[in-house]
Amino acid sequence: MTTIPSPAAGTDERLARAALTRAVEPGDEHAGRWLRRYGAAGFLDRLLRPGEHRAEHRAQHRGAHRGEQPDGGPGGAPGDPLFPGTGARRVDGWRRRAATAEPARDLDTVHGLGGRFLVPGDTEWPRQLDDLADARPLGLWVRGPADLRTWALRSVALVGARACTPYGAHTAADLATGLARKGWVVVSGAAYGIDGAAHRGALAAGGATAAVLACGIDTPYPRGHDRLIRRVADQGLVIGELPPDSHPTPSRFILRNRVIAALTRGTVVVEAQHRSGSLVTARAAARLGRHVMGVPGPVTSALSAGVHELLRGDAVLVTDADEIVELVGDMGQLAPARRGPVLPRDLLAPALAHVLEAVPARGPTPTTVIADRAGTTPDDTLVKLYELHSLGFVERHGEGWRLTNTATEASNARRGGA
Amino acid sequence: MTTIPSPAAGTDERLARAALTRAVEPGDEHAGRWLRRYGAAGFLDRLLRPGEHRAEHRAQHRGAHRGEQPDGGPGGAPGDPLFPGTGARRVDGWRRRAATAEPARDLDTVHGLGGRFLVPGDTEWPRQLDDLADARPLGLWVRGPADLRTWALRSVALVGARACTPYGAHTAADLATGLARKGWVVVSGAAYGIDGAAHRGALAAGGATAAVLACGIDTPYPRGHDRLIRRVADQGLVIGELPPDSHPTPSRFILRNRVIAALTRGTVVVEAQHRSGSLVTARAAARLGRHVMGVPGPVTSALSAGVHELLRGDAVLVTDADEIVELVGDMGQLAPARRGPVLPRDLLAPALAHVLEAVPARGPTPTTVIADRAGTTPDDTLVKLYELHSLGFVERHGEGWRLTNTATEASNARRGGA
Repeated sequence: MTTIPSPAAGTDERLARAALTRAVEPGDEHAGRWLRRYGAAGFLDRLLRPGEHRAEHRAQHRGAHRGEQPDGGPGGAPGDPLFPGTGARRVDGWRRRAATAEPARDLDTVHGLGGRFLVPGDTEWPRQLDDLADARPLGLWVRGPADLRTWALRSVALVGARACTPYGAHTAADLATGLARKGWVVVSGAAYGIDGAAHRGALAAGGATAAVLACGIDTPYPRGHDRLIRRVADQGLVIGELPPDSHPTPSRFILRNRVIAALTRGTVVVEAQHRSGSLVTARAAARLGRHVMGVPGPVTSALSAGVHELLRGDAVLVTDADEIVELVGDMGQLAPARRGPVLPRDLLAPALAHVLEAVPARGPTPTTVIADRAGTTPDDTLVKLYELHSLGFVERHGEGWRLTNTATEASNARRGGA
Repeated sequence: MTTIPSPAAGTDERLARAALTRAVEPGDEHAGRWLRRYGAAGFLDRLLRPGEHRAEHRAQHRGAHRGEQPDGGPGGAPGDPLFPGTGARRVDGWRRRAATAEPARDLDTVHGLGGRFLVPGDTEWPRQLDDLADARPLGLWVRGPADLRTWALRSVALVGARACTPYGAHTAADLATGLARKGWVVVSGAAYGIDGAAHRGALAAGGATAAVLACGIDTPYPRGHDRLIRRVADQGLVIGELPPDSHPTPSRFILRNRVIAALTRGTVVVEAQHRSGSLVTARAAARLGRHVMGVPGPVTSALSAGVHELLRGDAVLVTDADEIVELVGDMGQLAPARRGPVLPRDLLAPALAHVLEAVPARGPTPTTVIADRAGTTPDDTLVKLYELHSLGFVERHGEGWRLTNTATEASNARRGGA
C-alpha cells in the first residue's frame, strides 16, 4: 500500500517539481534519471519518506536479493536500495533540502510577482529543452508577459565576458539591436559586460529579450542590474531553474549556460577569454546541435582569444545580425516557415488575435500605432507581436511590423468569403 | 626543312624564354599552351618568322584542309594557322613585343645586378610552380643570395592591404618575426602596408624573406620601398616574371599574386577590404591546394571585412606564428620531415657544407658566431642556414641555430666511423 500521489495528478506533479527545484541542483542527471523512473511526486516521496519505501522495496524483493541489499538505515548510507548507483552523499543532500522545501509558498511568492512555474507538458514549456535529456530543468520559474515557448522558437543567445572591452560592449549592443529589428528574441544571462549590453541593445530597439538567471527570479543578480532585469521582466522574460530566494554559485552559473544554449536556435559569443564560461555555453550549444557563432576581434586582445579558439574549431565567424539570421533563420522543424503561419488564425488565443487584427493590411506600422488600434499598452503589444512573429503571422520591418504574405492572403480570402 | 633550334638546346631555350617574358604577359594560358606544344624556341620562332612557318604548315596540310584554313597573311589576321583557337589580337601583341625583345641584353642587365634567370628544369627552379599548369611563369628573374627552390620549400606568404591600420601593420610584423624565428621564409609583394611590415618583421628578426614583384627586378616598385627591396635583395630574394625595366600594371599585380600563392606552403591574409587583391592571392592559394589563413580584426574595421569574408569560407583563423606553423608545418611531400635531412650530407654544395660544419654540435648558436666560425658574412651565413633548415640539417631556436637530431646523429656516426 502506498500514499504517494499518482504521476497523473497534474497539481501534485507540479508541486513536487517545484519542491524538487529546491532539493536538487540544476542539471543533476542522477536526479533526472530518478525523476524519469518514479515521476516527480514519486521521486519526492522517496526522498521524504525513505523508511516506508524501503520496507515496501524489501517486501517486493524478499528472497531474490537476500543479503545483497544492505539496509542503509536513515540518512542514506551507501547502497540505498531506493537509488542504487547514486552516491549516498548526493542522496543525503536531496533529502536534507527536500525536507525544508515549501513548494506551495514558493509558488505563492512567484505568483505574487506576476510570475509562474512551468513544467514539461505545459503549453508554454519550450520543447527544445527536452534535448537536455536527464539534465533537462525540473521546471522553470518565469516572470514576464511573453509566451516562453513561442519566443524561444525565434531566439538567439548573445553571451560573453563580464569584463568586456568597449569594443565588445558596442558590438554586443549593435548585434542585439540588429537581431531585435529583424524580429529575433535576444537571450542572455543578465551579467555585467556583454550580457547586459545585449539585453540593452534589444530593449533600445524596442525589441524582445529574455534573461536566464542562475538564481531565483525574485532575487536578481547582479544587484547592479536590478533595474535592467526589472525592465526585462516587464517587457520580456526572466527565467530561472532555482526557486525564490536562491543565490547563484559558480556551478549554478555554469549549469545555467546549458539552458541558454538549449533554449535558443544558436549561441553567439562576443568576447571571451580562454577558459571563459561563455565557451561552456558555446560547447553546450554545439553538443545540442545548435549553431555556434563567434564575433572576432583583434588578435592582440585577450578578451577575443577565447572566441578565436572557438572559431578555429567548428564555430562560424559572424560580423553582423544579417549573418547570424542567415544561419539560425533556417528554422527547420522548430518553427513555421518564414513565408507564413502554420497555425490557423482562428486557433489564436483571443489576446493574440486581437493584436493581429490591429496590424494594418498595408504596412510596416510602428508598435505604438498598433497598440493604439488594439487599445492596449505598447509593451503588451510588442510581446504579442513577437509571438505572432514566431507563429509566422507578422514580420518586423525596420522599426515597424507588417503582415506576412500568407497572413495577408488568408485574411483577404476570409474577407472575400465573408 | 626547319631552322628553329631543337628544344633540347638549353641555352636557346633559356634565351627564348627570356625573350618570351617580354612578349607575353604573366599568366597567359594561351601562351602556356603553345609553349608546351612548340617549346620556347619553337614558339618564339613562330612569332618571329610567321611566313616561313605558315608555308611549312600549308605544305604539311595540303589537301587535307583545303579551303578550311584561310591564309592569315602577315599581321596575324583571324584564323592564323599557327595558333588556332588563340585570338588574332593576342597573337599580334606577342609578335609586336617579341620583335623588340633583346633577351641577351636583358640577361646581361640582370647578371650585372648579380641576378639570374631561372627556367623550369634548373636545379633552383621551384617545382611547386608547376601546379600553375599553363599559367606557370615562363621563367623567373631573381636577385639575391639564397636558393629559391630550397627557400620556397619552407615559406609562407603574408599579404594584405596597402592602406592598412596600425593594428594590421603591427600584427603583420609580429607574425613575420615569429615565422622567421621558427625558421620560415616570409614571402610577400613588397607593397606599402602589410607587405612591407611583413618583410621588415622578418628582417628585424634576422630572418629570411622574399619579395615577388609585379615589375622588373631592376625597377623596384613602389619607389618608396627602394631601400627595403634592396635589403631584401641583399639578404633574401627578389623575384619577378617580368624582364628588366618593366613597370607594374593592375593586371600584373593581380597575376603576380598567383606566383606568391603557388610558391608558398600557405597564404596568410592580415588585413583586406572586400574585393581586395589579397583575396585574389588567397583564392589562388585555395585553388592550388595551399593552406589559406586569415588574421581576424574588429568587425567594426572595413580593413578586416575581407579577411572575415575569407574566414566565413574555408580559410583558417590564425592569431600567431605557432598556429600558422602548426598548419603549414605538415610538410607532406614537399620537403624533408622536420626530424632531419633526407639529402646525404656529402651531397651538399661545398658552400652549404662549409656553413653546416660551422654549426656547433651543442646548443643554439647565433648566426654571427656561426659566420665567424665559417669565415663568411652573417648575411651569407643566414641565407645558407635557411637552406640547411629547409633541407632538414639545422633548426632555428629563438635567435640561434642548432643541428637537428638526425644531423647530429649522422655527424656522430661519421665521426665514429672516421
